[in-house]
Amino acid sequence: MENSFSKAGKRIIDWIDNYFSTVEKFPVKPNLNPGDIEKLFDYAPPLKGVNYDEILHDFEKKIIPGITHWQHPGFHAYFPANNSEPSVLAETLMAGLGVQGMKWITSPAATELEKLVMRWLQQMLKLPADFKGVLMDTASVSTLCAVLSARERVSDYTINKDGFMDKKLRVYCSAEAHSSVEKAVRIAGIGSDNLVKIEVDDLLKMNTSDLKIKIDNDIENGYLPCCVVGALGTTGSGAVDPLEEIGKICLENNIWFHIDAAYSGNALVLADFRDSVKGIELATSFVFNPHKWMFTNFDASAFFVKDSSLLTKTFSLVPPYLQTGHEDEIDFSNWGIQLGRRFRALKLWYVIRTFGVDGIKEKIGKHIELGKRFEKYISDSPDFEIITPRNLNIICFRYKSTGSKDKNAVNEKLLESINNSGKIFLSHTMIRGNFVLRFVCGQTNVEEKHIDNAWNIIRQHAQELK
Amino acid sequence: MENSFSKAGKRIIDWIDNYFSTVEKFPVKPNLNPGDIEKLFDYAPPLKGVNYDEILHDFEKKIIPGITHWQHPGFHAYFPANNSEPSVLAETLMAGLGVQGMKWITSPAATELEKLVMRWLQQMLKLPADFKGVLMDTASVSTLCAVLSARERVSDYTINKDGFMDKKLRVYCSAEAHSSVEKAVRIAGIGSDNLVKIEVDDLLKMNTSDLKIKIDNDIENGYLPCCVVGALGTTGSGAVDPLEEIGKICLENNIWFHIDAAYSGNALVLADFRDSVKGIELATSFVFNPHKWMFTNFDASAFFVKDSSLLTKTFSLVPPYLQTGHEDEIDFSNWGIQLGRRFRALKLWYVIRTFGVDGIKEKIGKHIELGKRFEKYISDSPDFEIITPRNLNIICFRYKSTGSKDKNAVNEKLLESINNSGKIFLSHTMIRGNFVLRFVCGQTNVEEKHIDNAWNIIRQHAQELK
Repeated sequence: MENSFSKAGKRIIDWIDNYFSTVEKFPVKPNLNPGDIEKLFDYAPPLKGVNYDEILHDFEKKIIPGITHWQHPGFHAYFPANNSEPSVLAETLMAGLGVQGMKWITSPAATELEKLVMRWLQQMLKLPADFKGVLMDTASVSTLCAVLSARERVSDYTINKDGFMDKKLRVYCSAEAHSSVEKAVRIAGIGSDNLVKIEVDDLLKMNTSDLKIKIDNDIENGYLPCCVVGALGTTGSGAVDPLEEIGKICLENNIWFHIDAAYSGNALVLADFRDSVKGIELATSFVFNPHKWMFTNFDASAFFVKDSSLLTKTFSLVPPYLQTGHEDEIDFSNWGIQLGRRFRALKLWYVIRTFGVDGIKEKIGKHIELGKRFEKYISDSPDFEIITPRNLNIICFRYKSTGSKDKNAVNEKLLESINNSGKIFLSHTMIRGNFVLRFVCGQTNVEEKHIDNAWNIIRQHAQELK
Repeated sequence: MENSFSKAGKRIIDWIDNYFSTVEKFPVKPNLNPGDIEKLFDYAPPLKGVNYDEILHDFEKKIIPGITHWQHPGFHAYFPANNSEPSVLAETLMAGLGVQGMKWITSPAATELEKLVMRWLQQMLKLPADFKGVLMDTASVSTLCAVLSARERVSDYTINKDGFMDKKLRVYCSAEAHSSVEKAVRIAGIGSDNLVKIEVDDLLKMNTSDLKIKIDNDIENGYLPCCVVGALGTTGSGAVDPLEEIGKICLENNIWFHIDAAYSGNALVLADFRDSVKGIELATSFVFNPHKWMFTNFDASAFFVKDSSLLTKTFSLVPPYLQTGHEDEIDFSNWGIQLGRRFRALKLWYVIRTFGVDGIKEKIGKHIELGKRFEKYISDSPDFEIITPRNLNIICFRYKSTGSKDKNAVNEKLLESINNSGKIFLSHTMIRGNFVLRFVCGQTNVEEKHIDNAWNIIRQHAQELK
């Protein structure tokens, strides 16, 4: 049996190449029930090995029909996990090398390239020069690291050692913040009841008067304010909290200020957007995900802190069998939760070198133009309405429907009908009690024609509901 | 500028193919100082893109010299992050698809293939049939999920909500347990002072009399025992704690019993080793890392729990914009910390199908034989001594040295000398105050000749110290 890696690898490269050019032929989201894919496979593991051709054949026949195609230009749901050719090339190399970058010595180039690409990203986004960067897997983990480090700082590093103290800590975020903040507060043992949700204004941005009042009240009542999480782009609608005002309040009260810029942070490469955002320099920590909108396949979350010792004092715990003398500053496993670390920097290095900063700006800029194009279709139509002003390329809208029908029910039905078509894939959010359709155009290869097509599909499905 | 993905991808496949067959020509560990690699690169990110050939050229010239070659058969340090051809092929496909498996609907096949391969692993390791499995990135995260879920169970799910209560929780592990347990206890807010380190016996296994005494004392003193972590293979020497006895103590006291089998768990595929390990069925949770010794490139950590609701009750927190009606049971992001999830199941599916269970058994069995071979060299030599009996393929030994020299200093110098040769790479551990050389032979392609070669290199460097 000939089972050559080289042959199989090249067949897979051809498969991917073909997939990239034909992805639009697949339904974006398969129309399946749970268990439909599972039942195609043997319950027991195979005793004997088979050749690569047979496996790739089964992959095409049994797995592909169960894939939601995140790289389909009709994928407008959630935030994208966008991808690109150089990113795939780099992941292939990473897998081939098979290194584990937990410490500097376990591959000096993995650590040093990570330092390099983090500095590149820092310059590209015009982040403060004193920020230090590290790559994490997800924003969930980056935000958790921020909350844990804030917890340790405010407790003078006693919770790590003694466990929780009598005083209750408090974390603040707007009602529109991502669920990962609440998850982090739970994991950290602070308790979701001590996550104080701050009111939002009409544009769904944090109301800083309410923040101030709630912090003051908490201090009066014996709570210990620990961390404020500001959104540079909420998940629902992309609203940007008033970061400068939040930063000042945090400074006055010596509270850790974490900025969650998971998706929208990528757009800081654009001078216009960057200029519109004030106050990043006041942040204690900042996260954005190149895997969401910088053409770097999942996972790659870029986490910055003002002072890396805030992380190492929280996470470093070097046992004898790992001690090498180069601890803390250059052993990135001391900056976070996981000991094992992938060589993610190689992906960012490949992507930034292939696109160039100009190429990345151009693509992100174009995606925002496409967002405007879609927004115009909606606002020009008598049958639809924009629910909150567009932020970047996130459009929240709904079908007005006619008569006395429950608008939420109608829009939920419309979404289901659109998504089951397999032609485009949208998600939804709730805004002021309204079920709202949410359209994001950040898939790497989305073009004008896809936006026009999406609009036609949406209109047509709305027509059919009548 | 021709910049074809297909061409570049095939060049990379050829590069990897060549790397696999020539990896022994590289120094296992480069001899560098921090900063040596970093300074080869431009400080500022490039504005314009370049073509793939130029990037691959720089990769070879600037990055490869800074790589520690985990796939070199002379890599005997830490635990391996071993790799294989099918694993690289699958990572390439995963990158090409670019899916994000946070929820069932975001790619049904990603969730369902994960269920499938976890069931396969469960059968291969003869784990209890009622275990439910999920893939995590690392054992650090799996163990953290166990500790967090234990914390919630013992507090009746109040800490997640209210934050810590007055009662101090206690977690127990042996003095030889992996550092990730202490990290988890810190992150969970339990405090490292509440991690009770249990004595070990002469074979470095947990002393269950001491465990019993310490739990009883803690209960008497008003502490709340929460979780015991037993090692199925400690990191230092591979010692297996008396799991059955620990499990019974946990059962009596209603304490969560987590088994950390990160490395050695892979050897449970072998009937002999499986038969020698009693008590796994008493575990509440169990983790092992196929990325350590099942030819699946980093990352892939297999985490099993007796009852998946113990995880979902701890981690599920589904915001409206992610609600689809298929929550909890099939949305794996509700089983752990991260929202975003890679399609890691594809790697395990590729690896298990290519090797077959028999092929995996054969390779792991061979690695243990190689461990015996190395052990014999050491024990037959008058100049070296085995410090603790071999477990599987982990050999802890040291150079006896001559005269009155400080044995620890001599062995430290010996290790440095061996590692700087670039021919093989070992790590060390401390056993009863002794600096001990630690030799693991689990790299995928290690053969008799590599063991013989390693022994010659070690002897030669010891001679030179005289």
